[in-house]
Amino acid sequence: MARVREQMDFRFPPILGKLKRGPQVLLPKDLGMIVAFSGMSKESVVVDAGAGSGFAAVFFGSIAKRVITFEERPEFAELAGKNIKRSGMENLDLRVRSIFEGFEEVADIINLDLPNPERIFSSKFSLSENGTIVAYSPHTEQVSSFVKAANESGFKSFTIEVIVREILSRDSGTRPQTKGLMHTGYLTFARKAHIKGE
Amino acid sequence: MARVREQMDFRFPPILGKLKRGPQVLLPKDLGMIVAFSGMSKESVVVDAGAGSGFAAVFFGSIAKRVITFEERPEFAELAGKNIKRSGMENLDLRVRSIFEGFEEVADIINLDLPNPERIFSSKFSLSENGTIVAYSPHTEQVSSFVKAANESGFKSFTIEVIVREILSRDSGTRPQTKGLMHTGYLTFARKAHIKGE
Amino acid sequence: MARVREQMDFRFPPILGKLKRGPQVLLPKDLGMIVAFSGMSKESVVVDAGAGSGFAAVFFGSIAKRVITFEERPEFAELAGKNIKRSGMENLDLRVRSIFEGFEEVADIINLDLPNPERIFSSKFSLSENGTIVAYSPHTEQVSSFVKAANESGFKSFTIEVIVREILSRDSGTRPQTKGLMHTGYLTFARKAHIKGE
Amino acid sequence: MARVREQMDFRFPPILGKLKRGPQVLLPKDLGMIVAFSGMSKESVVVDAGAGSGFAAVFFGSIAKRVITFEERPEFAELAGKNIKRSGMENLDLRVRSIFEGFEEVADIINLDLPNPERIFSSKFSLSENGTIVAYSPHTEQVSSFVKAANESGFKSFTIEVIVREILSRDSGTRPQTKGLMHTGYLTFARKAHIKGE
Repeated sequence: MARVREQMDFRFPPILGKLKRGPQVLLPKDLGMIVAFSGMSKESVVVDAGAGSGFAAVFFGSIAKRVITFEERPEFAELAGKNIKRSGMENLDLRVRSIFEGFEEVADIINLDLPNPERIFSSKFSLSENGTIVAYSPHTEQVSSFVKAANESGFKSFTIEVIVREILSRDSGTRPQTKGLMHTGYLTFARKAHIKGE
Repeated sequence: MARVREQMDFRFPPILGKLKRGPQVLLPKDLGMIVAFSGMSKESVVVDAGAGSGFAAVFFGSIAKRVITFEERPEFAELAGKNIKRSGMENLDLRVRSIFEGFEEVADIINLDLPNPERIFSSKFSLSENGTIVAYSPHTEQVSSFVKAANESGFKSFTIEVIVREILSRDSGTRPQTKGLMHTGYLTFARKAHIKGE
Repeated sequence: MARVREQMDFRFPPILGKLKRGPQVLLPKDLGMIVAFSGMSKESVVVDAGAGSGFAAVFFGSIAKRVITFEERPEFAELAGKNIKRSGMENLDLRVRSIFEGFEEVADIINLDLPNPERIFSSKFSLSENGTIVAYSPHTEQVSSFVKAANESGFKSFTIEVIVREILSRDSGTRPQTKGLMHTGYLTFARKAHIKGE
Repeated sequence: MARVREQMDFRFPPILGKLKRGPQVLLPKDLGMIVAFSGMSKESVVVDAGAGSGFAAVFFGSIAKRVITFEERPEFAELAGKNIKRSGMENLDLRVRSIFEGFEEVADIINLDLPNPERIFSSKFSLSENGTIVAYSPHTEQVSSFVKAANESGFKSFTIEVIVREILSRDSGTRPQTKGLMHTGYLTFARKAHIKGE
């Protein structure tokens, strides 16, 4: 009887592998950085927007205590809803409106993957101590606008970009893969600047 | 009264910021990738070795259900023990011996940051379905040895390297920081190859 | 008698190794790209500004037929003059004024390493067919301004950044060097858009 | 009458744009680095092997005084010959045999883009003072072998890899291109170690 080895896809962890992908989802390389640099843990309350296909929300949901994800576009909200259902997770809360209308919960991490993330600073939101706002920005101009708004609101920020190269190790030798992903987006992390001596 | 702004350190999440750092700890950029590509979640049982200063174990402990970390060098085991205590986490189990002597638990993720990680394949270990072995290797020769041993044991593997650049956004303009970290180590993820049709 | 091995410096070619370095010279990685993507050859007439310490002018002078280099700041012009003299080259012409005052020669390559390189498009200059203007810009905002001005003047452009990693190959193994240069500047190449069918 | 703008190809300089490309030519990013780090100039005698499609030889020929290029595979030698003819250059000398059979000229730069470049050290060759041997190696194992052989022959070496990212600057914003070339080969530069005090 024939044996057929499945092609294994290491590019997505199992929890994401079973979701339906929409366009331009946050990729594991960026999701991993958001977790690592924000300090997301199983105690975290995460607020996320825009949900898009729900990819990031499901990923965060597998780690955090609770995830509230906002999506104002009905067609994306529907896809996100299906993916959340498919994930089987019960700590995900999808709200079909703009995050910039404000929310009541105290967030440990606010993750923004939408145009003009700097609008958060003029919205109603609440962050825990050491709470972090993360903005994902494909363009450098968006980074500048977000950093400027963060500064003006008394936040300090830190921006990174992540380049991941796949390395091939074969009988013929070891080398990075010829072609790959050169750029997705910049990640800016903002935290409230503490003021000593008051 | 004088106001002094604290210098904020974004390079480590708060949970790691309070630990005592030993030499050559796994950095957040690599820890985040291990989480993202292994699919580590709050349901995960993680087995980790060598503990070193306990940095990775504490990071994983903030996310996973349970972490068992092995360290056979007494001086490092002592430091790891102190850092685990300092973290206040109760889901971390430190064992002062080599992981290659084997363990009984079923691991979802086995994280190896020690010389000759390929020795795992000739050790007693147990992995859940979709369970992942991760090896961190500073040198390309180590990647080759691990990948070869993984193949010979019926595992498929995937190797990446992660380059993170800090981006400065200031009044004078936007640009990556001049100098930075060019290399830490390669990350290889190995999973049991499934065989269809048996 | 004792044998002492000289430390060899591979980071600069011999022709540049004997010059006195001023601050922020164009590095070989960027000089090499300027040559390769502009197509600089021993037939080329190169116009360069600002000369700074004369580093780029001497490098280009070792390749091109003739180099005219502009430097309006007297203290830099003095350093550039000394370095040109030290190089022993006779095809280098230093002019102590701004390139934006215009020049009469037909250039094959115009290399701009100064603030506001887009001013070239409103200056008097002359380019050969396939002639290339190169702008070196540390910040992304400078890239945008130059590209916009190039477009408005009927030029097409192409921008790159160059990351060079040193690789260590030792008995202990092969790996990229831990720390290094993450960023110098962006290189934009502009050529006159040809219009067919006229 | 309709105006059609030509698509301009900035990825290759004009001199290379008119050649017929064979498989796996050395790209401008690597050619530029060879020039910059070897110090190739219009005084240089360059020895090159294997010629392949003659791409590198023609590029070097546009800069150096003289280029001798070796190609032992008849079908490639034919293509190289055609491209050399097409370039119109008269300082290129194609020899249809292996460089490892030796040559009489004193080279300033020996460029090796073929398997087992370390064979040069057991071949008959002659280098000027400060002369440089360059080896292009897709795999890390090749780098190790070359560096080891260089050391054993009294040469010092320096290895780099070059990552070039294209940057898009458009009305919608500035960002690196999404996909691109992650890897071509490593470049090792070797020079005779000088011994002081003799």
